[in-house]
Amino acid sequence: MLIVLHHSAKKKDIENINKTIEHLGLRPVAIPGAERTAIGVIGNQGWIDDGPFRENRAVLEIIHVTKPYKLVSRDFHPHDTVVKLAGRTTVGGKSPLLVIAGPCAIESREQIAASAGFLKKLGVPVLRAGAYKPRTSPHSFQGMREEGIRLLDQVRKDTGILVVTEVVSPEHVGLVSEHIDILQVGARNMQNFDLLNEVGKTRNPVILKRGLSATVEEWLASAEYILLGGNPNVILCERGIRTFETATRNTADLAVIPLVKAMSHLPVIFDPSHATGKRKLVGPMALASIAAGTDGVMIEVHPDPERAVSDGPQSLHFGEFESLFRQIRLLEGFVRKKLAS
Amino acid sequence: MLIVLHHSAKKKDIENINKTIEHLGLRPVAIPGAERTAIGVIGNQGWIDDGPFRENRAVLEIIHVTKPYKLVSRDFHPHDTVVKLAGRTTVGGKSPLLVIAGPCAIESREQIAASAGFLKKLGVPVLRAGAYKPRTSPHSFQGMREEGIRLLDQVRKDTGILVVTEVVSPEHVGLVSEHIDILQVGARNMQNFDLLNEVGKTRNPVILKRGLSATVEEWLASAEYILLGGNPNVILCERGIRTFETATRNTADLAVIPLVKAMSHLPVIFDPSHATGKRKLVGPMALASIAAGTDGVMIEVHPDPERAVSDGPQSLHFGEFESLFRQIRLLEGFVRKKLAS
Amino acid sequence: MLIVLHHSAKKKDIENINKTIEHLGLRPVAIPGAERTAIGVIGNQGWIDDGPFRENRAVLEIIHVTKPYKLVSRDFHPHDTVVKLAGRTTVGGKSPLLVIAGPCAIESREQIAASAGFLKKLGVPVLRAGAYKPRTSPHSFQGMREEGIRLLDQVRKDTGILVVTEVVSPEHVGLVSEHIDILQVGARNMQNFDLLNEVGKTRNPVILKRGLSATVEEWLASAEYILLGGNPNVILCERGIRTFETATRNTADLAVIPLVKAMSHLPVIFDPSHATGKRKLVGPMALASIAAGTDGVMIEVHPDPERAVSDGPQSLHFGEFESLFRQIRLLEGFVRKKLAS
Amino acid sequence: MLIVLHHSAKKKDIENINKTIEHLGLRPVAIPGAERTAIGVIGNQGWIDDGPFRENRAVLEIIHVTKPYKLVSRDFHPHDTVVKLAGRTTVGGKSPLLVIAGPCAIESREQIAASAGFLKKLGVPVLRAGAYKPRTSPHSFQGMREEGIRLLDQVRKDTGILVVTEVVSPEHVGLVSEHIDILQVGARNMQNFDLLNEVGKTRNPVILKRGLSATVEEWLASAEYILLGGNPNVILCERGIRTFETATRNTADLAVIPLVKAMSHLPVIFDPSHATGKRKLVGPMALASIAAGTDGVMIEVHPDPERAVSDGPQSLHFGEFESLFRQIRLLEGFVRKKLAS
Repeated sequence: MLIVLHHSAKKKDIENINKTIEHLGLRPVAIPGAERTAIGVIGNQGWIDDGPFRENRAVLEIIHVTKPYKLVSRDFHPHDTVVKLAGRTTVGGKSPLLVIAGPCAIESREQIAASAGFLKKLGVPVLRAGAYKPRTSPHSFQGMREEGIRLLDQVRKDTGILVVTEVVSPEHVGLVSEHIDILQVGARNMQNFDLLNEVGKTRNPVILKRGLSATVEEWLASAEYILLGGNPNVILCERGIRTFETATRNTADLAVIPLVKAMSHLPVIFDPSHATGKRKLVGPMALASIAAGTDGVMIEVHPDPERAVSDGPQSLHFGEFESLFRQIRLLEGFVRKKLAS
Repeated sequence: MLIVLHHSAKKKDIENINKTIEHLGLRPVAIPGAERTAIGVIGNQGWIDDGPFRENRAVLEIIHVTKPYKLVSRDFHPHDTVVKLAGRTTVGGKSPLLVIAGPCAIESREQIAASAGFLKKLGVPVLRAGAYKPRTSPHSFQGMREEGIRLLDQVRKDTGILVVTEVVSPEHVGLVSEHIDILQVGARNMQNFDLLNEVGKTRNPVILKRGLSATVEEWLASAEYILLGGNPNVILCERGIRTFETATRNTADLAVIPLVKAMSHLPVIFDPSHATGKRKLVGPMALASIAAGTDGVMIEVHPDPERAVSDGPQSLHFGEFESLFRQIRLLEGFVRKKLAS
Repeated sequence: MLIVLHHSAKKKDIENINKTIEHLGLRPVAIPGAERTAIGVIGNQGWIDDGPFRENRAVLEIIHVTKPYKLVSRDFHPHDTVVKLAGRTTVGGKSPLLVIAGPCAIESREQIAASAGFLKKLGVPVLRAGAYKPRTSPHSFQGMREEGIRLLDQVRKDTGILVVTEVVSPEHVGLVSEHIDILQVGARNMQNFDLLNEVGKTRNPVILKRGLSATVEEWLASAEYILLGGNPNVILCERGIRTFETATRNTADLAVIPLVKAMSHLPVIFDPSHATGKRKLVGPMALASIAAGTDGVMIEVHPDPERAVSDGPQSLHFGEFESLFRQIRLLEGFVRKKLAS
Repeated sequence: MLIVLHHSAKKKDIENINKTIEHLGLRPVAIPGAERTAIGVIGNQGWIDDGPFRENRAVLEIIHVTKPYKLVSRDFHPHDTVVKLAGRTTVGGKSPLLVIAGPCAIESREQIAASAGFLKKLGVPVLRAGAYKPRTSPHSFQGMREEGIRLLDQVRKDTGILVVTEVVSPEHVGLVSEHIDILQVGARNMQNFDLLNEVGKTRNPVILKRGLSATVEEWLASAEYILLGGNPNVILCERGIRTFETATRNTADLAVIPLVKAMSHLPVIFDPSHATGKRKLVGPMALASIAAGTDGVMIEVHPDPERAVSDGPQSLHFGEFESLFRQIRLLEGFVRKKLAS
């Protein structure tokens, strides 16, 4: 951290700042300049709170050389992380584009079995479906919860498809991590730090969705919790941010795909369904994310979207998904073989 | 719910929509119009998901007559809720303006005792201090946790001041609700629904902070979780929202004070410290919120803000707070006695 | 427009509303329902202000059947508009993907001649360069203005490349429209309605950039000004919106490409340079926009970006652009021939 | 400007940066540090574009010591500016709180005469009313334009009330500045720099509204255009910003009142009508702004809001305004005499 002082800063100001730095167990290093002095702070492991300095009247600006994250940074780990998914496939690096699909919520044995069967047959490696549903209103369907986990585990054994589901509370992580291949931390829980600590104790791959109003830096700092806990298998997922525009459910921020891949070694995937909220935009945006360099896509598909208990308007029909899946594989091939060469 | 159809809607479209409505256990009522038909949906208890209808090509628009909340609405409970705080004071309705103050985090016995002593002597009824600290980076100070709860409980017994602290995980709610008078659900946890359910099982007053990017409707729906759980003692707290403007930490949305008080019977308080992030803006905004009709203010004050482990730049010095507290009481008196008359 | 009334609405309320409708020269049509009444408003040409009704206590909700635009809507003009560019190329419909490139600002005869020569040789049909520069600070370079127009006109005659430049004031439109092929209305002027009216009087193609915080509806309504003025040659350009995220200069809202193309018949292009503000993100986002269905891209390229007077960090070097241009043409071919088939 | 280099920066990088600085006519000053080097840039008059340095791989961070504005800054002009309004009243500094009121648009001689008569009698010094109306849709009422200016001039002569109206195009500034006391630059034109230059040539007081998504820094930089043009009589006006929240028309950002008054010497007023868009929120927010330290308020009032051609829902009835005006004067007195002492 570099503390740049006003040119009006007095000797006493500098002494006070130095004392505060030492009080924090760190060491100040004077960096005298032409018009003003800066003080470097060294000796820290990771991020330093700049709180004690920020509103000191002698301080002009504070530069953080260290970031709120470290383990997730490409500086410390230059090569792409490749996350193994139950030994059957991988995501990140040169892995094939990961496609995850399925309904928003588990509604019944029939619905989830139909979805799994359809996707498995098509060659989609991972089924997504929610058992614990975070819903704005307590009067909305809250998910099948433990019963949903049981159904998902069954379908996984029956078909051999990999499954991913959201965890919303630290106490569910144990159960879910035993029966489900991949855990998801949803946008609303991106800064539920106790939950992040808990999934950090497992070794399951974890899809960490970006919060509705989370900056890239906050998102990476949340991933840092999981890695710091001992679980390196984090997959970041952009799913749209909240902005003033209401014509789409959220605003898909595709630029973070190349941006985050430059900042971090973790795989980054994209969820066009939540990002847009509109069925007709899912296909174009899924394809766009591939051209932007995503490591995977997660798409909502439902046997009967018009009767889905949640997120029907953004869920594809089976036929629509089949057609999109074909386009995805074609574009993936082109981008990797022709465009990159 | 009212489903308005395109004037091109066919008889078969209407039949399909009616079937879906009946499939959800509800009853369709045709509302024929000059140019187009609308279908009313009746028989529901609370909110209906409009998912199954939203992207049907025959549907022009959907009007929700019912809201995602009911118990928190003034429609169902016209009189102001007055929340009792441990039998010693109240907030809401014609109660005196509630003032809550204290440091962001519990740092030591000395720091919290000094804060409590100062505030008690001044006549501030409630001390705030965080034991569990949700921090962006895992490398930042995470709070004294259980040890902090113990210190807070001690200071409460020693001085007789009421205390409020944040709960961040469902599993802490039991312990905290026994030892602490008032629970706080922080902005990052406003949609941590398992946590809302858990605080809904207690009877402690709960301060529910608005999420960084939560709409008023979502905020009220989160309060609904707590009331539906059986706990009517909810105090809403505006603390600034995230916008494009970075000159302040957040953007204080004071207009929600009169707005939410018109929509709901619950008390609404304001936190100028997090809303602005700058010490010099805390006073003017605290006073502004009183003129806007707030039921209370929550202000960060610290014995030594320059050395605070978190949020120092927005914490007042004791002297600054003392002066502001005097202004608050003066303005409160004027607003209630002279301005309203 | 449909005015839905509260079920508590009295006969007198309805009569008052009907009178107001008639006062506006329109006709009310009663639409009685099971629980409440709605009033249809007919006889209007285009958008009706709902102001006189919005806060009437008898009114529950107002549904706009008509939009604030009409001529730009696909409802009224189902086929893609193909805009002719000086008889030499076209944009929209099945036209080849339009590529526009060049420096942010005209800096000198040498700089603009070098850019034009490079682009012409490469096969890029349109050169962009700013003569009038809208700059946040009056202390920043304000553009070469009339002298810039002269230079641009010269380079256009010398090389045969088409040129586009921004107009910022109604009084410049005459001069610029004579000497420059394509006019641009910048993001900051999207709602400079006198300027829109003025470019509506010309027949030059007009690139209308989306405002920093403009909704899609407002953007289309601004285009409506130009069409209503008699100029049908409007090309919409997404250039990123302002959000809370500061890791990129703006947030590229690519979902509006398929969305706006469904709502309107006008061509839509994308500017990845302003949308991201970072050189390394320009390529991935340009390619992403093609996969999303854009009709063209507009990219900043500069002979010496490190010395550019404005927007250097987002400008590509000639070599970088050449490589990206090859990728653009490859992807365009693939998307149109293979992916769509 | 201070350019901080990566510790990996090579001698050659430093030489290149120094050359670029000199190329801009400025002078580099090396500021060697413990771990890295910084380069100070001196010799500039005002703001330096950091473009040529921002994406240089050797550069870690750039610190602007100078701001995009100078004349509007309190650093250069420590005392409050007091703007004289036609010799009859003033705003800023210790002037009485300025109250401006009137309808959104001039609709007829009767409407504007009734408004002026009512306000003059009440003791409101300034009447606001729009002649040129910037409207989202070209199908909405566009204002009475020159005829409106004539009506406003007449009412001003008849009653002696001061008048303010919006200018939307440089070419109207001459006419309007002759017949109208105070000019207004609206939110949509805050970065219409040619318009700013034009009002900078007059000596009329200018109310400069903050743009919908303008940062405080951009707002002050726009004011700088007017002062740099020679007109020091600028009054800043906060009118709400655009955020994700749609429960209010805009989000009133009251914290900018004390913030901007600390950064700049210019008077700052507040428009609660556009900031909230809802009649019932106008009063509470007007009062809140006074407690926050505003120099004035601008409020929409209409003889018949239900029939207003624009902004009816946010316009007060005469009776409502009369009551609010009384509260404003009471609170103003209290805040200035009791609270500040």
